[in-house]
Amino acid sequence: MVLKNLEVTMKITHFNDVLLEDVNVEGADKTKIRWLISKKDNAPNFAMRMFEVEAGGHTPFHSHDWEHEVFVLHGTGALVTEEGEKPFQQWDVIFVEPYLKHQFKNTDDTLLRFLCVVPHSHQTAKMSGNPLGDKPANNC
Amino acid sequence: MVLKNLEVTMKITHFNDVLLEDVNVEGADKTKIRWLISKKDNAPNFAMRMFEVEAGGHTPFHSHDWEHEVFVLHGTGALVTEEGEKPFQQWDVIFVEPYLKHQFKNTDDTLLRFLCVVPHSHQTAKMSGNPLGDKPANNC
Repeated sequence: MVLKNLEVTMKITHFNDVLLEDVNVEGADKTKIRWLISKKDNAPNFAMRMFEVEAGGHTPFHSHDWEHEVFVLHGTGALVTEEGEKPFQQWDVIFVEPYLKHQFKNTDDTLLRFLCVVPHSHQTAKMSGNPLGDKPANNC
Repeated sequence: MVLKNLEVTMKITHFNDVLLEDVNVEGADKTKIRWLISKKDNAPNFAMRMFEVEAGGHTPFHSHDWEHEVFVLHGTGALVTEEGEKPFQQWDVIFVEPYLKHQFKNTDDTLLRFLCVVPHSHQTAKMSGNPLGDKPANNC
């Protein structure tokens, strides 16, 4: 399908078919990542990643000026902030605002797996103007 | 925690504790939505929604100038485009580019449940400049 001289496409893939990569940044331990949807897919605004944190593992305890939108797919963990730890579990939704110092850690003996969506550093295409971005934008 | 005169917070909640609303737009059938993370949470760039499509249900067959980043949590369905239908199942990742005419439909007799992330129509805060938005941005 060609529209406006652009090939407009889609992708469907099982997450296991997306490369699992080590997270080597300082402060991370026993943590891996899959870039499920990224700029490589022509995603214009944000990236969907999957994190896999083994028992005893954690992401860095840090802050940054972008947000996290997280969905927990498997396992049990804690969100660490400067105010302490808050537990989370499978099927929890987690929103971390920009600038909040945070860490995700596995608190159980099974794999912790969660999605984490982040904005791109720079837009790769015109920012989509979604007039239905607010309620009642109840379609998909 | 106060930073730059802003209260910087987070939220952790089970998806079942987020309001389940009917999708009443034309072309949708047997479809409900939960706004898991939205502007109401001060999300600056994009919204994470969960769709629940009952057996026989579907979203509208339509196009728009924003993308979908989707993760299938439960059930079996098909992504309908003008080129036909492509099946998907639990744990699949789906990326739908802007302008592609599409529909999500349940093709089984159990509930279809998926996440669908979309950009806001307008930014509610300064666009986060994520210098780690591209690989190797392997932290969370």
